[in-house]
Amino acid sequence: MRLNRATDFAIRVLMFLAAEDEPASIDKIADILGLAKSNTMKIVARLSTEGIVTAQRGRGGGVSLKTPADKISIGTIVRLFETDFAIVDCFNPKAETCAYEPRCALKHKLNQATQAFLTTLDEALLSDIVSNSQKPIRQLG
Amino acid sequence: MRLNRATDFAIRVLMFLAAEDEPASIDKIADILGLAKSNTMKIVARLSTEGIVTAQRGRGGGVSLKTPADKISIGTIVRLFETDFAIVDCFNPKAETCAYEPRCALKHKLNQATQAFLTTLDEALLSDIVSNSQKPIRQLG
Repeated sequence: MRLNRATDFAIRVLMFLAAEDEPASIDKIADILGLAKSNTMKIVARLSTEGIVTAQRGRGGGVSLKTPADKISIGTIVRLFETDFAIVDCFNPKAETCAYEPRCALKHKLNQATQAFLTTLDEALLSDIVSNSQKPIRQLG
Repeated sequence: MRLNRATDFAIRVLMFLAAEDEPASIDKIADILGLAKSNTMKIVARLSTEGIVTAQRGRGGGVSLKTPADKISIGTIVRLFETDFAIVDCFNPKAETCAYEPRCALKHKLNQATQAFLTTLDEALLSDIVSNSQKPIRQLG
């Protein structure tokens, strides 16, 4: 069971920004977190569209949190970046038909479990997992 | 976010067996559920090793539940067939190092969420999701 890499990276980018005092360039974010620049740009673009970060071009520009860290839940980010919660095939409308469809009780239970997963993350705020003292430990890349 | 296909298939095989009155052949299980015979064999072998099903060769043989359906939780099956719960890269000991390791609070929150997912499934019994009336609706394959 795993999340998309984009979800993982998006959370790390937000953790980084939450601990920064000033706007950070895409290059800096990518270098320090050890992410590809292209991935970092895509993630920032998506977060910007959602009003979670602002990205300013030019001198003195850079990326910074727009929404305060104590208003961003990890659950929100996971819901945003997971393209689907098709935890098994039958959740995917394009999947091959299952012999148990359409009245399978398993689907309902898996939905409940997924909701329990997300609810736990809804209760986790970015500010809970990052303090100013929690800067990345070392530069990767 | 998704489970391995083997997990999904294992649950379907158990749902099938729970609704059967007599031992079923691998061919029958594979045909009715629309699974590859090789996958079905692997799944049955694993379930047999764990004492969840019995598989008897020869005439009058076949696969049947060994553990009663009201003693098999979906959580047990998910834990058995998911090779890991490396929900993000940092859970995988072979993954590239993350700049936030080893003191990342995100990992703890993701662990909590995964536990909430599994606990929900621990409470779901095979007998809850299958009644004798819930046979597969149609044969696939």
